[in-house]
Order: sequence, then structure tokens, then C-alpha cells
Amino acid sequence: MTKLLDLLSEVVGTQYVLTGGEINPDYTHDECLDLDPQVPIAVVLPADTTEVSDILRIAAELQVPVVARGSATGLSGASRPNPNGIVVSFERMQKILEIDTDNHVAVVQPGVSLEQLDFALAGHGLVYPVSPGQLSASLGGNVGTNAGGMRAVRYGVTRNHVLGLEIVLAGGQVLRTGGKLAKTSTGYDLTQLIVGSEGTLALVTEIIVRLQPRPSDAATVLIPFPSLEHITAAVPATVGSGLNPTILEYIDVVSMAAITTSSGLELGISPEVKEKALAYLIVVIEQNSPERLQQDIEHLADLVEDRGALDVYVLPPKAAEELITARENTFYVAKALGADDIVDVVVPRANIASFLHQVSKVAAEHSAIVVGCGHAGDGNVHLAVFQPDHEVRHKVMIDIFRTGMTLGGSISGEHGLGTAKYEYFLELEDPAKIGLMNRIKLAFDPSGILGTGVGVGTAGQIEGKEDSR
Amino acid sequence: MTKLLDLLSEVVGTQYVLTGGEINPDYTHDECLDLDPQVPIAVVLPADTTEVSDILRIAAELQVPVVARGSATGLSGASRPNPNGIVVSFERMQKILEIDTDNHVAVVQPGVSLEQLDFALAGHGLVYPVSPGQLSASLGGNVGTNAGGMRAVRYGVTRNHVLGLEIVLAGGQVLRTGGKLAKTSTGYDLTQLIVGSEGTLALVTEIIVRLQPRPSDAATVLIPFPSLEHITAAVPATVGSGLNPTILEYIDVVSMAAITTSSGLELGISPEVKEKALAYLIVVIEQNSPERLQQDIEHLADLVEDRGALDVYVLPPKAAEELITARENTFYVAKALGADDIVDVVVPRANIASFLHQVSKVAAEHSAIVVGCGHAGDGNVHLAVFQPDHEVRHKVMIDIFRTGMTLGGSISGEHGLGTAKYEYFLELEDPAKIGLMNRIKLAFDPSGILGTGVGVGTAGQIEGKEDSR
Repeated sequence: MTKLLDLLSEVVGTQYVLTGGEINPDYTHDECLDLDPQVPIAVVLPADTTEVSDILRIAAELQVPVVARGSATGLSGASRPNPNGIVVSFERMQKILEIDTDNHVAVVQPGVSLEQLDFALAGHGLVYPVSPGQLSASLGGNVGTNAGGMRAVRYGVTRNHVLGLEIVLAGGQVLRTGGKLAKTSTGYDLTQLIVGSEGTLALVTEIIVRLQPRPSDAATVLIPFPSLEHITAAVPATVGSGLNPTILEYIDVVSMAAITTSSGLELGISPEVKEKALAYLIVVIEQNSPERLQQDIEHLADLVEDRGALDVYVLPPKAAEELITARENTFYVAKALGADDIVDVVVPRANIASFLHQVSKVAAEHSAIVVGCGHAGDGNVHLAVFQPDHEVRHKVMIDIFRTGMTLGGSISGEHGLGTAKYEYFLELEDPAKIGLMNRIKLAFDPSGILGTGVGVGTAGQIEGKEDSR
Repeated sequence: MTKLLDLLSEVVGTQYVLTGGEINPDYTHDECLDLDPQVPIAVVLPADTTEVSDILRIAAELQVPVVARGSATGLSGASRPNPNGIVVSFERMQKILEIDTDNHVAVVQPGVSLEQLDFALAGHGLVYPVSPGQLSASLGGNVGTNAGGMRAVRYGVTRNHVLGLEIVLAGGQVLRTGGKLAKTSTGYDLTQLIVGSEGTLALVTEIIVRLQPRPSDAATVLIPFPSLEHITAAVPATVGSGLNPTILEYIDVVSMAAITTSSGLELGISPEVKEKALAYLIVVIEQNSPERLQQDIEHLADLVEDRGALDVYVLPPKAAEELITARENTFYVAKALGADDIVDVVVPRANIASFLHQVSKVAAEHSAIVVGCGHAGDGNVHLAVFQPDHEVRHKVMIDIFRTGMTLGGSISGEHGLGTAKYEYFLELEDPAKIGLMNRIKLAFDPSGILGTGVGVGTAGQIEGKEDSR
């Protein structure tokens, strides 16, 4: 261990190799509710790609596990330290290297945060439109989990905006994938393979993201409905109309009450409507002129009124902002209320209502409370699960995941498997697919040093080691 | 060989195993200009996934190479038969399995053609917006090459629309990836890895594609400019304005003359403008109302007039359709004129002018003629190369590819490497990246039976076989 620390100190400088008491508790966990903190051997803070490469060369030589860390806002434990390994934290690599207004791309280091990038882009009339709840999240972490968020219905998720990467392989080799290119057909798409790989295939040291024009006008519309089924019928009509909403969220009444109460938000919904409403749809529309925005709002109102909307509220800007912020903070509301775990199953969006119907049965069977909200436009359902008994909760979770998969969905829409959800993946997913993923992991990282030690490709480490010995 | 044919006949029926004189010359090549035809041992026509699985099991047992074939409209020889192998042609698997208007997806077999799908979608007000030149192309082939086309500037390429696949691995194992889901973060993205892999990782037997609302109104605008530099300046302004054009193409004057002459197209451009014009920009704008379309055209006209446009022609519908068709057929014009090879290098779009400037120097040095057009919105340049001497042409091609890569681009934007461009890839690409791709190939296809025998992962076959013996 002394050898490891000495070698790392030679690379980054002693003050950037944190050990023992120097390791702030923040480094020992991410935002996952279901995992205990863990202290690594060391937290290493590289300044550039060369240092990352040297760190990985050393780690490979000494066979020390490596976990990558951005802002640790992840919800599945993908950046949870391995107690026998080191954490590579990208907080010193937070430069925006280029904003290229001709090609509409930005080149950033992995430690750059979403709010930092947004601030830099505003003056250029451009936007990086992926917006997972936490704006302190790093771009590197977003690449790791393929982060999504509320704007995915219009803009897609992280993978739809990452055009190229600089990566460092487990042995220290530096590669560039993709480029300032919206398309390329030159061999296997390594960029897309790295996005969503949660630090298990390579470390990312540079990211080229595509930018969009920043719309000038926006409106937030709140629409109460008598049932969730009404919402799932209104959603395809809204998307199919060509209105191209930026946000299309549903919130159940319990979650709505929780977020309005916790934020003191007053939305001006009449008591009669409140009484009849069982679910709310939030629609954000963006346009390039106030006239078009007004036309779109009227079009939307006609469309949802034909589909059972109880009323249509165009929120004043301040209330709109507060509602979106409150919706983004539902995780923290759930956490404060004592939620024991969270779920972000994704199903085909037309199956949201039947998924939630079956989930409520699962919850009742196991005396659990399950409430939520979600991305109605893309089928990504966010649930908070209240059931303190670990064993019972595991059954609830397995049943929820199985229900989602049976309806054509998957375990996670945007949080990733990380450390916490991987056990469910192993239990429920096609073993042939897991085997293939393990072999891909070996193609990148034959000795299995990248990742938390529990996660995609983990079985590959063992399998690979047995194979090669 | 008798054993192979007997086993295959048992699976698909004797009439669907074509050999010798039964093999129509069409099966011996795709549209690549630079390759001779090759006759395979047999062309096999499976009816469903089970038959594909059985074929691959037999091929693996007997170690027979397998090349997948859609409509063979490819331009790089990715479906060129291996003389020691079989061709699996998907022409009997051409069912549209589902058009799901709630989730806005279609589920199709790989033999479904683009025009077949478009015809089926029109009545639902939906569109599969990827539009490579040839509408007889199959969806399976499009997945193989990650096909692009003129609408990529707005809608992206094939990979941006493929949400899930059913695939058959080299040993016959059937897997499902993704689903009717716009997002998922559940392990490595196998769907995206298969898209663009040119039949070298697995055979695709089912495809889930995402659909878009079909816009009601469209206009085609033709804009002559005094130079290509003017066009590369106008393009970011057009995209950044939020006009969101569906098509943004440039055509050089030589190519414009060739396509208008060959199609007898009269565009009504005044002689004075014609004299000054050195390059043309074609812009297609789509909207959901005639009023918005008219506003957008005026906005576009203001924008390009400020940037040196010589005039702005809104084409009548018939001329518009003919121009777009003629542009789509530039490959056939080039072929008819005797072009010896074609190039579809992609560069960051702001570098198109400097790329073409350097290409003209390369052409002059080697007494070659190089003319072209391309996707101005995404930097994908299409060139026809006239230089009959194979050796000299190889030098021209290498220099063109190297120029593109030096400017931050890659060898192919949408045609793929196939068999024809792979040699250049091997010569110019980072060996570490090639090595990684070879190892990925081995993870899928350890004995290397999938593909033409020349292409991505080929080196992996050899390397892998050596490793494991």
C-alpha cells in the first residue's frame, strides 16, 4: 500500500492523494439511499489526462480497483468506493475547453457541472438540453449513467448528445472516439458503448457534447386529470400533434401534495378541481416567439380538454419555476420523508398506467407504501418505496422490476444499475445478455480493475480470470 | 459442402438454398464501385428468427463464413459475398410486425424497405424520418451501416431511431436488446453497438424504430452563393436560428450542372446569378401550418441574404421534388459518368470548405478529378473520384481520408467501411482503437464467422484464434 501511495503521489503530488482522516465523508458515498458509506484506500485528484493515464497504469500494475467519481449525485451507487481500491475524483478537471459556435458543440472536462456549462452557454444563445434533476451533477457522471431527466421527451438523453470522448483504458492507454461529428460510420461506436457504462470500461477525460439553439419563450402548463389512464391517453396525442413539448411529466396526488407542502407552493387550483383530480400532467412548451407559444398553448388546451382534462392552468413564471424545481427535488422530499429506496423503471409509455396499477397491488401485498411521479412522455416512472424491512423490501423491488420488464420495460431508465440495482439485474435479466456484457467488459478491462466491484461486468472479472489461468 | 447444403436445406427447405446457377448475379455484389462480384457457396433465404438461429448454429459448427444481405444498396461492400461462405438474404423477412401509435414506434423485420414502411406510416400521420438516397434499401441494411441521408441535420441517423433489436449471435443464440423505450440505463447499450457493425457482430432479425409526427407543410428553397465559404458561414446561422431545417445540402456547380442536365431539370435561375454562383445550398423546411412555413421561409431569406446569398428561390413543388430526387441520385449520375470510386468523409461542418480546398490540391497532384456535394448541416461530404489507375487512385483516396481525419473527421459518415474502405481504416486509424474493436468482435463472435472476411474485427479473428490455441 505504501508503494501504491508513493507512486500515486509522484504522479499527482502528495497533496492530491487523500488518505485516512483527509478523506471527507462526502467521498464515501453517492446519493443512493440503500448503501452504507465505504472508505477507499485513497482519493486521488488528477489534474489532466496524462495523470489519469499514469494512475491507471499504476493501478493495473498493482491490480488495485479504481472507482471514478464526478459530483457523486448518482442514485445507484456507481461511484461508491471499493474499500480495497482508490477513487479517482475529477473535481480538478473542470475546464470548459471550448464552446464552438460554428459546429454547435462544447468540449469539456468530466468535472464540469451542468450549471457551469449552462452559465457559459447562455450568452451564446445555445443550450445543452439534458437536464437531470441535480444541476451540480458533472458531465462525466452524466456520461457514466447516461443521465436523462425531464427534457428527454424532446431532446433525448445524454447519449443522444455525446459526439466524442477521450478515454483512458484500464492499462493507461489514451484513446479518442467520435469527434465534432453528428454522424460517423467507421467501425463500432465506442462512444455509445462508453456512455452508460458507469466507469466499468474506461475513464472519461474529455467529452464533446452537441448543443442546441436556446428557445426564447416558454410556458409551463399544469393539467389536472381524473385518472392516470386519462394522462396516458393524452400523452400520445400531445406528442403526435407535433407540439414537441420539452417536458411532459405526471405527478400523482400524494406526491403533488408532498411537493407543494414541502415547498409552500400555491398553484391556484380550485377546490372543486382538486377534489376530482387524481393525477396531474405538467407540460412545458418552448418556442421562438410569444405568438407561436400562445398558439401552441391553445392547441394543447383544445387537445387535452377533448381527453378529459379537468382544467388547464398556464402557470405564472415564478410558480412555474417553483413547480419544476419542486418536481426536480422529489427525490429529496422522498428522502426527507424516510423513503427506504427508489425505483426508476422505464416502460413503454402507453404501459405506465397498467404498470402503476400492478405496482399498487405489489405494495399492498407486502405492506409497503409506493408513491411517485415520472416522465410521462418517455415511460420513465419514479417511485419512492417505504418498507423498512430489508428482506420484504427486496421482494417488493424484485416484483416491481419484474412487472416493468414483463411490460416491455427495463430496471432503470436513467439512474443506472450502479452497485445497488445490479443484484436485481443479475436475478432478472437474460443470462446470455449478461454473459455478452461480461465478455465486452473483458475486451476493455481484462483484469477487471475498473468499477466498484459490484456492477456490470463483475461476473466477467471472475469468469475472465478463471479462463486465462 | 454437401453436408452444409443438406443441413441448410433441412432448416429452410431446398428451394430456399440457392447454389450455382440459381444464384442471380444480383447476389454477388452491392452498389460499391470498386469491387468485383463474388459468388458464395450458397444464398440462404430464412423465413423467421428460428431459421436464422438454426443457420448460424450450423455455420458455427462447420466454421462457414456468413454474410448478411438486405437490399444490397450499400456502397462499401459490406454485403459482398465471401466465396467460401454463405449469404443470408433477408428478402423473405419483410413483415411490418406492428405500428404502435401510442408509443410511436414500429416493429419490423430486417427485410422491410424504407418505402414499404413509409407507405404504411403515411395513414397514421407518422414518419420514419431517416432518408438515405435509396428508398428500396432495407431497414436491416440501414441498421448495419448506420445509414444517414439528407434529413440527418434535423432527425439524426439510423442509430438515433433504433430503440431495440432482436439479434442472433454467431452460435445461434437469440437475444433481445432495448425495447419500445426512448431511454434505458441498464448495462452496456448492445443496441447501439450493433447499429453500424455491418453484420460482423450478430445478425439482426427484428428492429424497433421510433417514429415522428409527419409535418403537414414543406418548402424547398434553393440558394446560390458566390463560394462554398459563404455556405459554411450561412449554415451555423441557419441551424442556430432555431429554424430546424430538415435538409441542408450543398452542391458544387459541376455536380449541379450534371444533375440538372441528366434529369432535364429547369430551376429558373437567372443567367446573371448562374454566372456568379459557385455553390448552391438547398434548404428544406417543414412545419405544421402554411403560415408558420411562410414565416420561416422569410426568416431564412433574411438570414442568408445577410450572408452573401445571390438570390433565394422557393421552388414549385414539382421542381422541388425533382431536385431532391436528382440530388439523391447523384451517386448514379457519378456512376454513369464513369466515376472510379466514391468518398463520404465526414468532417466538423465548419471545416467543409477547407477540406474541399485541400482535396482539390490532392486531386491536382494526382491528375484526378474530384467533384461533389454533401450534407452541409452535418459535415458529410460526398465526392466522386475519377482516376482509373488503381494505384494512383489509392494514393488519392488515402490523402483524402487523411485530410479529413486531420481536420477532425472520419473516413465514412454513413456508407460504412464495409470491405472496400477497411484497408484505409487499417492504414490510418489508431492501432489501439483497432485492437479494441477486434477484442469486441471476439466477445461476440469468437470464431470469426460473421462478415465478409475483410472488415472491422477481421484482425480479431486471427488474433483471437492465436490467443486461444
